[in-house]
Amino acid sequence: MSAPAKIPDPLDTSLPSTRNLQGFIRDKKTIEVKLTTGDVMKGTILWLDPTCICLNDGSDQTLLVWRQAITYLRTLGT
Amino acid sequence: MSAPAKIPDPLDTSLPSTRNLQGFIRDKKTIEVKLTTGDVMKGTILWLDPTCICLNDGSDQTLLVWRQAITYLRTLGT
Amino acid sequence: MSAPAKIPDPLDTSLPSTRNLQGFIRDKKTIEVKLTTGDVMKGTILWLDPTCICLNDGSDQTLLVWRQAITYLRTLGT
Amino acid sequence: MSAPAKIPDPLDTSLPSTRNLQGFIRDKKTIEVKLTTGDVMKGTILWLDPTCICLNDGSDQTLLVWRQAITYLRTLGT
Amino acid sequence: MSAPAKIPDPLDTSLPSTRNLQGFIRDKKTIEVKLTTGDVMKGTILWLDPTCICLNDGSDQTLLVWRQAITYLRTLGT
Amino acid sequence: MSAPAKIPDPLDTSLPSTRNLQGFIRDKKTIEVKLTTGDVMKGTILWLDPTCICLNDGSDQTLLVWRQAITYLRTLGT
Repeated sequence: MSAPAKIPDPLDTSLPSTRNLQGFIRDKKTIEVKLTTGDVMKGTILWLDPTCICLNDGSDQTLLVWRQAITYLRTLGT
Repeated sequence: MSAPAKIPDPLDTSLPSTRNLQGFIRDKKTIEVKLTTGDVMKGTILWLDPTCICLNDGSDQTLLVWRQAITYLRTLGT
Repeated sequence: MSAPAKIPDPLDTSLPSTRNLQGFIRDKKTIEVKLTTGDVMKGTILWLDPTCICLNDGSDQTLLVWRQAITYLRTLGT
Repeated sequence: MSAPAKIPDPLDTSLPSTRNLQGFIRDKKTIEVKLTTGDVMKGTILWLDPTCICLNDGSDQTLLVWRQAITYLRTLGT
Repeated sequence: MSAPAKIPDPLDTSLPSTRNLQGFIRDKKTIEVKLTTGDVMKGTILWLDPTCICLNDGSDQTLLVWRQAITYLRTLGT
Repeated sequence: MSAPAKIPDPLDTSLPSTRNLQGFIRDKKTIEVKLTTGDVMKGTILWLDPTCICLNDGSDQTLLVWRQAITYLRTLGT
């Protein structure tokens, strides 16, 4: 049996944190996320996977935030 | 046999650290938590899972603190 | 059975984040990537594997960015 | 066979580092621990598990230090 | 069956990043590597394993760079 | 079959980095180690395990350096 390939954690939708993030996507909720560098990024979440959160920050660029660098994420507005 | 999917660590309730956090939730204990960025966040813990601690900081926003960014957590008050 | 050797995560091409990066390579998209040290590096991605992203920053040097150090990556220009 | 749940590392008491920490608990040794933020915390260790070290810093609060944030730990006094 | 001992990832020579590093060793290529502390170290790579890169920085000392602390590595000169 | 308990990586003595560290212990070599906080600690290594390096820094205290916080280690003197 060859060594088991290790697949990045699947996105565990049984976790409240994953369900919260998926809710923010569905509701197009504006959020801010603070990274280990101190950067604070604001926008809506387009999609997420075990490695990244893709953020729409109002520019027409693709912005991939690495989940390893997230310290906290907070909703904004109503 | 397909490569084993790796599920984030289940919340090991046999650990004293997990049981302490669950006690703070039950008792609505006010805590402060310091993150790797130096941010100190205060409030009560609403829920926790292997990825995040959801904190009620008195605002009506949802605040998800990533456990990977926690350096220490301390109770406050009586 | 000898202890299973752990192979670095294979590059999971089922993930949107991996597919996005592969698209940037194919389209020779200019990107910027911010590292935990605050360094921001600009260029096009030549290749990527589970450990590194190889960036062409316009110099004729080989530049290997460790994925563990990435906080965010953003496309630039059109 | 469902995907194997990954349990946080059990506290490996065969390791000298674990045995040292358990000795400090038994002897109520005063220690200082430096965290990645630069915080230095002093006190005696009440208990430890794979995630946290619970420190008695002389206040009547519960202080949980996350092991992921420890850079070094040193004994103090005699 | 005793719990599977986890051996540090073997050096996966199928990865382009590993092959690049091995090429720098073979060609005695001068490189610079930037660490999470901001330190930039220059020299040639003597050997590498899953934990460290051994760098010859021109001093007659042994210099072990921990791979966990690498943010980027770049070739220098021709 | 209950979920496999994950034991911290055994100290892989087949790795050159481990063999180097063991050589420094045997030869009572003076080394300096730089941590992610910028702290530089000097002394001789008394023992090491997968979690810590125990350093004799000339004080009569026990000094446990967490390997997760090491950026580089260098020999000093002859």
